[in-house]
Amino acid sequence: MNEKALYKIFYGMYIVSSFDGEKLNGQIANTVFQLTAEPPLLGVSINKENLTHMLIEKSGIFTVSVLAKEAPMKFIGLFGFRSGRDIDKFKEVSYKIGLTGAPIVLDNTVAYMEAKVVNKVDCGTHTIFIGEVTEADILADKDPMTYAYYREVKNGKSPKTAPTYMKD
Amino acid sequence: MNEKALYKIFYGMYIVSSFDGEKLNGQIANTVFQLTAEPPLLGVSINKENLTHMLIEKSGIFTVSVLAKEAPMKFIGLFGFRSGRDIDKFKEVSYKIGLTGAPIVLDNTVAYMEAKVVNKVDCGTHTIFIGEVTEADILADKDPMTYAYYREVKNGKSPKTAPTYMKD
Repeated sequence: MNEKALYKIFYGMYIVSSFDGEKLNGQIANTVFQLTAEPPLLGVSINKENLTHMLIEKSGIFTVSVLAKEAPMKFIGLFGFRSGRDIDKFKEVSYKIGLTGAPIVLDNTVAYMEAKVVNKVDCGTHTIFIGEVTEADILADKDPMTYAYYREVKNGKSPKTAPTYMKD
Repeated sequence: MNEKALYKIFYGMYIVSSFDGEKLNGQIANTVFQLTAEPPLLGVSINKENLTHMLIEKSGIFTVSVLAKEAPMKFIGLFGFRSGRDIDKFKEVSYKIGLTGAPIVLDNTVAYMEAKVVNKVDCGTHTIFIGEVTEADILADKDPMTYAYYREVKNGKSPKTAPTYMKD
């Protein structure tokens, strides 16, 4: 089996956020996908070890910010390689609280969606949270970043907790 | 709610295929995504009305061919807008039978994966089939097609049964 074939699947780059009371957190994710059109259902695959996983479990809410192609590596690093258990990521970025009560990252964001969890699927290391989209908007007329661009042009890495992690 | 925000999510273009005895079928899908790395799990969202859905239900197997950017519209139309109930799609293309017994489309294919269904999730109009990847390979050193390229450059449409269908 040539596992590199799996690299040929296309993804964008997103920040998935959630909350528990006053605790806000978000993380980089590339596996965000629409599952049905009516109603609009979104799926996200989140590692069980991540703080965001615990917050989505508790609140039943997640938001998705679609990252702009121009997002700097430092910004991606904050959400992709740091844990919200150690730092308050939202202290360092601009955001708004959405209609669902969950935070939406606004920096380097092309568009966002808010979703209420209607189902979840245990996939071993990860959970797929399936949410009905209750609010969505486009914030900037910019190109979104693809995961391929992040890996190939920006030479970005993936943490071991990513669904698409592969040893180099 | 601005539903156009959902257009900012990135997808590739794939043919998802399955079989039932001698009956082979496949269809265009854009919602193919890796869910976990160990073991490698793939998810696909397939409309319940489609023949491929019935075949995956029966065989517990699906394959994914990653479409090349250069795939012609006529080829995409065969798999995207025709039903395998009316025609034998595999009569018109080159393919091979994989280790799982399911067919793998080879024309205009950059890479492929074979997967055994380990779970499925009812999402209303669609089912997410979750499969463990048992075989995969890269077939050509070509760029894969993105859904955005299909929509914007090739001016391609989506059938009403697509997870990402939106009225124009």
